[in-house]
Amino acid sequence: MTAELLAPYDRVRALRFDERGFWLLDQRALPQRSEWLAMADADAVVEAIRALIVRGAPAIGIAAAYALVLAARRLTASGAQARVDGYAAVAARLRAARPTAVNLMWAVDRMLDRCGSDPQPDRALAEARAIEAEDLAANYRMALAGAAFIEPGSGVLTHCNTGSLATAGLGTALGVIRAAWAQGKLAQVHASETRPWLQGARLTAYELLEDGIPARLIADGAGAWLLAQRGTHWVIVGADRICANGDAANKIGTLSLAVAAKQFGARVMVVAPTSTVDFGTASGADIHIEERDPRELCEYAGLRVAAPGVRAWNPVFDVTPAELIDVIVTEKGVVERPDGRRMRTLLAARSGPDVS
Amino acid sequence: MTAELLAPYDRVRALRFDERGFWLLDQRALPQRSEWLAMADADAVVEAIRALIVRGAPAIGIAAAYALVLAARRLTASGAQARVDGYAAVAARLRAARPTAVNLMWAVDRMLDRCGSDPQPDRALAEARAIEAEDLAANYRMALAGAAFIEPGSGVLTHCNTGSLATAGLGTALGVIRAAWAQGKLAQVHASETRPWLQGARLTAYELLEDGIPARLIADGAGAWLLAQRGTHWVIVGADRICANGDAANKIGTLSLAVAAKQFGARVMVVAPTSTVDFGTASGADIHIEERDPRELCEYAGLRVAAPGVRAWNPVFDVTPAELIDVIVTEKGVVERPDGRRMRTLLAARSGPDVS
Repeated sequence: MTAELLAPYDRVRALRFDERGFWLLDQRALPQRSEWLAMADADAVVEAIRALIVRGAPAIGIAAAYALVLAARRLTASGAQARVDGYAAVAARLRAARPTAVNLMWAVDRMLDRCGSDPQPDRALAEARAIEAEDLAANYRMALAGAAFIEPGSGVLTHCNTGSLATAGLGTALGVIRAAWAQGKLAQVHASETRPWLQGARLTAYELLEDGIPARLIADGAGAWLLAQRGTHWVIVGADRICANGDAANKIGTLSLAVAAKQFGARVMVVAPTSTVDFGTASGADIHIEERDPRELCEYAGLRVAAPGVRAWNPVFDVTPAELIDVIVTEKGVVERPDGRRMRTLLAARSGPDVS
Repeated sequence: MTAELLAPYDRVRALRFDERGFWLLDQRALPQRSEWLAMADADAVVEAIRALIVRGAPAIGIAAAYALVLAARRLTASGAQARVDGYAAVAARLRAARPTAVNLMWAVDRMLDRCGSDPQPDRALAEARAIEAEDLAANYRMALAGAAFIEPGSGVLTHCNTGSLATAGLGTALGVIRAAWAQGKLAQVHASETRPWLQGARLTAYELLEDGIPARLIADGAGAWLLAQRGTHWVIVGADRICANGDAANKIGTLSLAVAAKQFGARVMVVAPTSTVDFGTASGADIHIEERDPRELCEYAGLRVAAPGVRAWNPVFDVTPAELIDVIVTEKGVVERPDGRRMRTLLAARSGPDVS
């Protein structure tokens, strides 16, 4: 199967940079409304990342790169020192917008490394476009590399949204599911709704319906019971940060599914570009896990649900330890039964060519 | 500690039978509105059970008993054969209202066994009142018996609603938490929101706030991550049916928490009256698990949330195998590390006195 056969499954986009500016699809409004928001400047992008207008670790990284293009353009009227200071300040605000997804830091670092601290705007734009294009190409490669692990007749379960809306296109975990589906291998596809933000119900279900892939939605709590039925062979998820030892931070609820997969004999696949791998973080214990406003849990789709006055704990991510992960799929290669030693093969491969 | 010290933690009621008739608190409207609905006849109760106006295995059983009182009253004007036929038909419709909770079948059987197939209404009312009073007394006993397992400084996590709203009062699992709290043993209380019906967010949070117990709500998917933090020592849940081998059906999401508890060294306590124990069901594989309308997952309060057209799988319960359960607490005694042999000690105790 060639990557071209996947194109029909990649029809949605989360962001767009054109002659009129930088646009983000407002993912808070999906699937009810499809609204593109114009980003007036880099700080609008910072706010959009914070407010989850754009989400998904790779998409956040790409959005940050384009935000730096907007900053470079706006700063052209300033003096040299003001340009350097202003650009550095924007980079700092972008990095602080969300703490867990490492792609955000990776994209900002790459823009600064390759274009300098006072970039010519067209040079910055070319680099941002390269980041986006490379992410898309990586996803096509990962889709095929991941699907190669899946036996015909398999059932899969995914969590959160890891599709075109979370990336430059096609997706990471959802890209693998799309490739396995295109190859006729999937007997069942389930997606968990992913409270509190319902990315599964709102976004993944939307993408799968666009593709004509007949998936079923489940409550997050139903994951273990689904796996106990033994018709689901793989839990396939993305990641927001993968540590040097193979521990992976991902959307809250992932750990629960990974533990249940182990209990009931299913396997766990983590799919993420190498921009998600952070060799500077030794293990999951070193990851800063973002906690968001408890109100996100006390409301459902904007409606007050919980008893007024109740407190809530709203961590956005959890960490799945490497020993619960069967395979990590990246565009530079796969790591089975990840540990520190096997992860280092990726470090060596990172500067090499992509897997084909 | 005596049971009297628990009374301040038992201020909410789900049902009421008085001189004006039989009333159910509409649990669909909580916590926003506290509305008591008058039940015109037994079939109104059947519909209320189906529609989750009343829910919780023990409360459903009690409601069914009072429904039979309403039926007996209405049938007094009929001839003898019509009374017997009409009463049997109501009993059948009640049994069919929800398939998983065995307390419903238990209460209907007890009413028929003790009051006959053509009961005098006052005799039926006395039996229904006895069922309610015995459930309440059982809960006070279980609360103390369960709390005895909990060490000072413990954290606990509960799922769904097992409090006064799910029973005659005080609750099963929530009764244990209340007793442990009253004894000053609890450092942390967490409640999962319990999708799709949000019994945790709407009902358990409401009851705990009434009690002044400072609990935190979590997303169902956050249970494993909470347990991984090691500050939560017990997962304490109710049951809708406990099998002869100790397998326990309970609200969807329970299995997920039990598996995570095992992974992270927490213990699992199932709290239920012996009316929930079904020695006629050998193991969890023999339980009919109710599946409800997929729309419950795709919308909230009439608001469409999931992408239109997506399918969903909406099982209401899951089965936690006995080997994941550390202790089953009933009013007749506790069963540690349940299996078929140990469960039979309960069968012998069921006709004996309650534990003190």
